[in-house]
Amino acid sequence: MSSDETFATAENNCVAKIYERHFHESLERLHGERRYRVFADIERISGRFPAARWRRSDGTITEITVWCSNDYLGMGQHPEVVSALTATALRCGAGAGGTRNIAGNNSPLVDLEAELADLHDKEASLVFTSGYVSNQTGISTIGKLIPDCVVLSDALNHNSIIEGVRQSSCEKRIFRHNDLDHLEALLREAGDRPKLVVFESIYSMDGDVAPIGAICDLADRYGAMTYLDEVHAVGLYGARGGGISERDGVMNRVSVIEGTLAKGFGCIGGYISASRLICDAVRCFAPGFIFTTALPPPIAAAARASVRYLKHSSAEREAHQRQAAATKRALRAAGLPVLPTETHIVPVVVGDAELCKAAADRLLERHAIYIQPINYPTVPRGTERLRITPSPYHEDSHIEQLTAALAETWDTLSLA
Amino acid sequence: MSSDETFATAENNCVAKIYERHFHESLERLHGERRYRVFADIERISGRFPAARWRRSDGTITEITVWCSNDYLGMGQHPEVVSALTATALRCGAGAGGTRNIAGNNSPLVDLEAELADLHDKEASLVFTSGYVSNQTGISTIGKLIPDCVVLSDALNHNSIIEGVRQSSCEKRIFRHNDLDHLEALLREAGDRPKLVVFESIYSMDGDVAPIGAICDLADRYGAMTYLDEVHAVGLYGARGGGISERDGVMNRVSVIEGTLAKGFGCIGGYISASRLICDAVRCFAPGFIFTTALPPPIAAAARASVRYLKHSSAEREAHQRQAAATKRALRAAGLPVLPTETHIVPVVVGDAELCKAAADRLLERHAIYIQPINYPTVPRGTERLRITPSPYHEDSHIEQLTAALAETWDTLSLA
Repeated sequence: MSSDETFATAENNCVAKIYERHFHESLERLHGERRYRVFADIERISGRFPAARWRRSDGTITEITVWCSNDYLGMGQHPEVVSALTATALRCGAGAGGTRNIAGNNSPLVDLEAELADLHDKEASLVFTSGYVSNQTGISTIGKLIPDCVVLSDALNHNSIIEGVRQSSCEKRIFRHNDLDHLEALLREAGDRPKLVVFESIYSMDGDVAPIGAICDLADRYGAMTYLDEVHAVGLYGARGGGISERDGVMNRVSVIEGTLAKGFGCIGGYISASRLICDAVRCFAPGFIFTTALPPPIAAAARASVRYLKHSSAEREAHQRQAAATKRALRAAGLPVLPTETHIVPVVVGDAELCKAAADRLLERHAIYIQPINYPTVPRGTERLRITPSPYHEDSHIEQLTAALAETWDTLSLA
Repeated sequence: MSSDETFATAENNCVAKIYERHFHESLERLHGERRYRVFADIERISGRFPAARWRRSDGTITEITVWCSNDYLGMGQHPEVVSALTATALRCGAGAGGTRNIAGNNSPLVDLEAELADLHDKEASLVFTSGYVSNQTGISTIGKLIPDCVVLSDALNHNSIIEGVRQSSCEKRIFRHNDLDHLEALLREAGDRPKLVVFESIYSMDGDVAPIGAICDLADRYGAMTYLDEVHAVGLYGARGGGISERDGVMNRVSVIEGTLAKGFGCIGGYISASRLICDAVRCFAPGFIFTTALPPPIAAAARASVRYLKHSSAEREAHQRQAAATKRALRAAGLPVLPTETHIVPVVVGDAELCKAAADRLLERHAIYIQPINYPTVPRGTERLRITPSPYHEDSHIEQLTAALAETWDTLSLA
């Protein structure tokens, strides 16, 4: 090594240290606020959902029951989904090999978009690499294409929506969560300007539902477009899995429906369904769509198999609702503080970050039950919780085990 | 239908029309500028790359040869990659079922991150759902965590970098493409403020290479951090596929290396490799990482198999360089206007949007050769081109066919 190289390396290390300090301090702040997160390293066991292998940091493996997955219907292990994935990988290979415009526009993905347009009874659909990206680049592009647009956004909208609205550079007005009067006041204030109302059908942390029809009434009255995030509902609600908007018979009143392939459909990716013009405009102008590799053919085929299957089978939806209701009943009967919800999401409130983490740790270590603690900023401070997501594959015996484990944990930690 | 419903529907349609007008006008503008893109609907044939099936809008299928894929080494069809994908799907199911924090942190993904850290000889790696997201949320988060940071960004950086820098809200200074003097001037101007230099190793459209070592020298001299995008190089260059920075022996001088799993590695996803602290900070603070479903276990396993394989096998890299050089030689010998490049990317300049499209259409329709035309804004007006990407699977006979087809097309369209 020349002396020049030695010098450069030494200087580089010194430079590195200065910058590392910033990252170190940010992480220390998180630790101080008890917000530093450690990810559980798990491997789900296909054919035996909700069972999974939990790998500890020392490499030892424990079999656990997952109670916090967003693969709500267990479609990730469905034989038709897995076999579409493996068959397509063998036929077409693993990746798409390019962006949608340059060599990556694979036939399974084109077919998936037609399947999704049909699901929501819209003219077209457009698939993105994730639901996050759908909202981020979808909303920002739509907002930018409407001159002088005002975006009216529900206060509890997901981070991906918030980022999408921010990046649209539109004026943003936030209406109180699911508050029709407040939304109407803001719509009225916006006067003749173009308006886009952005909201979710099911809010994932409280499991509550938006009054979609009433919001569409207001949108019509004040001449606003609507953008509805159905990520926690597609596959799960409606006669064919079209979401809450299908269940409520208002699918055609929403301008844009956004959904995910990663939750109810058990794969990965996101999409919008809308008019041909809107989908085409987003296709042509959204940077997060244009400049990224297309979803792999095996994933597109697996997602399509899942969407198609759930259009015709309601058995999973019925079992899902039944087991979610049974879980709520059992936990309530055991005196546990279940937040009342109308949906499949079962929040059990702890109300303190450290206790919430301690409860989750005890459930995993002692009872082999995995429920990730949900702390600030995902939920407001003081409402820290265990967010439980029963699936059709959580049997009555699983619910009994869960109830006993939670009761033991609540007793031991003297939780309310 | 009640009269209220009729009214609402009629009003909604009327509202819809007003908004549709904006999307329509935007699309008309694109058409007018000859920038409207039509995606070719193809399905690659595993085991027979670069062959693919092209599905026309009337449903008829033609077998074609793909000459524009970014699956540069054909790893998307590699038996070890495909079998890792199918075996993991059968073992774990299709999707991850959650975000990294909530039930989605699957063991194959954790193992992939270790494999990537080893590839770049860094302490840690962090995987994102795409290379686009890696840059967007990675750069914006790093920039936000360094108080008062100035970002120095190469003029030809990819859209995902531009978006990442924009979203960091840092002051941005653009240096002329690969211009060390200009970079030095801007570094000097930034004085004592923290500085982040963001650049690519290979620029995808011209196929030219950054002077990484010299940029690191400047970064050291002026106390700047470096962020290097190696998406068009990982898997392809360096003794183990670590990219141009490995080839040049400067891997350890770069603070953050960003790469993709979707090009040389043939799958999907992106990543950063850096110090443990930097990766941990991005893990904890990057919204595009936190709030999105994790990469599916089968994809993570396939990507890891690809990375691991290419660490030990150089046969693909050698065949790739050999066939790229042979392609350039053959096209030059035929008098075609090949842009001189030092890399595997072979740009053939047409210099006019309509002629470029006409050439691509003729190649596909008449010669069953698929090369997507590259027009503005991906490249500057007047430099419209066919961007050709030979792979190890493009044999000499493919190169002969390509040369003849291009020569015929150039003659017929009277191109320069």
